[in-house]
Amino acid sequence: MTIHTTRARMLLSAATLVAGAATGAAVHAQNIEYTIAVSIPAATHGWTGGVVYHAEQAEQQIEAAFPNIDVIVSTASSATAQVSALEDLSATNDLDALVILPFTSEELTGPVETVAQGGTFITVVDRGLSDPSIQDLYVAGDNIAVGANTAEWLVEQLGGEGEIVVLRGIPTVIDDERIQGFTEVIDQSNIEILDIQYANWNQDEAFTLMQDYLARYPNIDAVWANDDDMLLGVLEAVDQAERTDVQYALGGNGMKQVIEMVMDGDERTPISTPYPPSMIASAMFMTAAQFAGQAPMRGSFLLDAPLITPENAEQFYFPDSPF
Amino acid sequence: MTIHTTRARMLLSAATLVAGAATGAAVHAQNIEYTIAVSIPAATHGWTGGVVYHAEQAEQQIEAAFPNIDVIVSTASSATAQVSALEDLSATNDLDALVILPFTSEELTGPVETVAQGGTFITVVDRGLSDPSIQDLYVAGDNIAVGANTAEWLVEQLGGEGEIVVLRGIPTVIDDERIQGFTEVIDQSNIEILDIQYANWNQDEAFTLMQDYLARYPNIDAVWANDDDMLLGVLEAVDQAERTDVQYALGGNGMKQVIEMVMDGDERTPISTPYPPSMIASAMFMTAAQFAGQAPMRGSFLLDAPLITPENAEQFYFPDSPF
Repeated sequence: MTIHTTRARMLLSAATLVAGAATGAAVHAQNIEYTIAVSIPAATHGWTGGVVYHAEQAEQQIEAAFPNIDVIVSTASSATAQVSALEDLSATNDLDALVILPFTSEELTGPVETVAQGGTFITVVDRGLSDPSIQDLYVAGDNIAVGANTAEWLVEQLGGEGEIVVLRGIPTVIDDERIQGFTEVIDQSNIEILDIQYANWNQDEAFTLMQDYLARYPNIDAVWANDDDMLLGVLEAVDQAERTDVQYALGGNGMKQVIEMVMDGDERTPISTPYPPSMIASAMFMTAAQFAGQAPMRGSFLLDAPLITPENAEQFYFPDSPF
Repeated sequence: MTIHTTRARMLLSAATLVAGAATGAAVHAQNIEYTIAVSIPAATHGWTGGVVYHAEQAEQQIEAAFPNIDVIVSTASSATAQVSALEDLSATNDLDALVILPFTSEELTGPVETVAQGGTFITVVDRGLSDPSIQDLYVAGDNIAVGANTAEWLVEQLGGEGEIVVLRGIPTVIDDERIQGFTEVIDQSNIEILDIQYANWNQDEAFTLMQDYLARYPNIDAVWANDDDMLLGVLEAVDQAERTDVQYALGGNGMKQVIEMVMDGDERTPISTPYPPSMIASAMFMTAAQFAGQAPMRGSFLLDAPLITPENAEQFYFPDSPF
């Protein structure tokens, strides 16, 4: 986490902190003018693993770039733990800013509001709070674009015709938006969606569901798995069944293994769409600019979901990230 | 501009370049991996003067923070000159990114598209291009919020009742949005808008129009000038007429003189709303983060227009800026 001495009244609870680069921390601490806390979910699955990785990377980059800024990254394994972490962070530091990816909207809204009332700049990432007026800056991905951009590419590749199947995630606003963006575009073509079922963003459930689809439909031109974890299960099922009718199998999120397929020019998975865990880094850099450069950063930043293609895949590739 | 040697094939046309800090430029140039060009209007009036100031400040801050990034700031005094500047910039540099505040949408769209086709990351600020699909990142202020947030404050201060006059700027989308945001809120109260006329964002015209309002209306509880340049004209007219019925005179944009009034606790002008020229710095820092931190920065950033109050005015105050 970089040892935090200048403005801290006591050491932070070690259990809630992610270890970062300690090199030079003593020198660094002498010039600290601003403290930015970053509260994120622990690495409980692939995507949040990516969030932790990118938060730690951005911490090091921001502290190297701006010697007057100290960044503290804190992870929590539940909403309750995140509430406790916030209390610790604000009790032991004079926080100029808090960047938070809330576990849940309901449980975190009150505690974040308390931090805001102390004059702390609040940046909320991905999942919104129940009361958006608390935040100064909101950074989020565009799930409708994830679905729509994938669908537009698919319509063009299939010449506007064909039979496809779709997998859904966990019933949430995120899943609803992705499916909405996708189906709105497909509905304007002659492509038929043979079936669309939930597999809960789970690789094993996606494998089972895809086996079922393959058994029931003799021709499937393409599969949209809506998520790269589920895509891995889909690909396994298609390969085991040795089905050559499946021309395209697409996911979404920008998982490392899938980006590698895109970079390698995989014919069945030649594109992905990002819903990048590195959006935590976007939020951290923007928050840092509010203090380092007095650049106005209050507002809403909605990330696009541009197609990841062989030409640009390197921009989305983090070989050292767990995701 | 910081001397640009590493990737340049020739020196840039000096006339289009803003002089920046040259100290350490030779050392700096050796490590340059990324070149970010910034194309903005010249300082033809107060707000664009602020844009030039903040672009130069951000150039120095970004180059100091990220030794592998070179920033080139180029100003132009007309749309035609900006088109020429873009041609020069892209002919003489391998541009990784272009941050542009276009003079006009129509004339700049084609030239920016040409730059984009070379693989340059495009950040558009404030005035959009005719084809938004060209840009990677869009940064803009929220003119509806400028009007609405001012109106909400005024309704509360006046207890939902009173008589006010309003000044409009130059007939544009910007002016329309501000007036729309303001009147939608006022219409829900019992406040009466006695009159609303254009004064073209011009201090002298605002002075004359306010003299006319004062002559015609014996009681005016408040004035919304919609812009800080016009506010200065309004205040002069009210002071000359020695009218004590005018409880509040409000502008918008966050001009330095008006922020000073807010900081000093001025009773008649205790707030402002930002439409800050420093949004060019926001755009530059975000673009730099795309390269320095590989943070995803494709998308749309819409700045809020939070009330500037005595408590937070310092965050919006740039004593060395011309605006």
